[in-house]
Amino acid sequence: MSEQHLAPVGPVPVPAHEPPYYVVVFTSTRTGHDPDGYTDTARRLSALVRQIPGFLGEDFAHTPGGLAVSVAYFRDLAGIEEWRRHPEHADAKRRGHERWYERYVIHIARVEHSHGFTRT
Amino acid sequence: MSEQHLAPVGPVPVPAHEPPYYVVVFTSTRTGHDPDGYTDTARRLSALVRQIPGFLGEDFAHTPGGLAVSVAYFRDLAGIEEWRRHPEHADAKRRGHERWYERYVIHIARVEHSHGFTRT
Repeated sequence: MSEQHLAPVGPVPVPAHEPPYYVVVFTSTRTGHDPDGYTDTARRLSALVRQIPGFLGEDFAHTPGGLAVSVAYFRDLAGIEEWRRHPEHADAKRRGHERWYERYVIHIARVEHSHGFTRT
Repeated sequence: MSEQHLAPVGPVPVPAHEPPYYVVVFTSTRTGHDPDGYTDTARRLSALVRQIPGFLGEDFAHTPGGLAVSVAYFRDLAGIEEWRRHPEHADAKRRGHERWYERYVIHIARVEHSHGFTRT
């Protein structure tokens, strides 16, 4: 069997890192207005956040017609603050308030423990 | 307009609570084996966890064919530990290893900041 058969198929969760690190949990429901604008902006922000020092990855899931849950991982609060102040991110938040989000909640938390399981 | 027209339609994210509190982020991909067993167990556990003292709620999203992200909120680590030791939860974890999960990652984190937005 060649190695490519052993590679994961589909999305892979962000792995456990050595604590401490930080999670930004963002849960949301959308209005359904301007879905193309939302999708383009989400793609752009997803590329931009990768340039933030200490960014460790992002997990995202969206139940059709239901809740979206995003979890972004950062090594420290300085990275989260830099991302919060990023001009394109701030502009996207403004449009999120105006158009895209029905509700959202943000929880910023310091990871104290983590572990993972991969089927062998 | 009657009050029921103002009630949210569909899922509502768990609201921001006053810190400190804890999040248990559980990200996973599944094997696809025994989907009925998984669904029944998930429903049963979702009812059981509500009985744990200090449980504050759970957000869940699953992209079809992709990642599932669950975030459970607890007031303190004692509640998380009680849930971890619950016999039905421990039994479900065993079956998860045997059958259901391709991969999973758990991050346990102490919330330092939270806020929410609701469209008015």
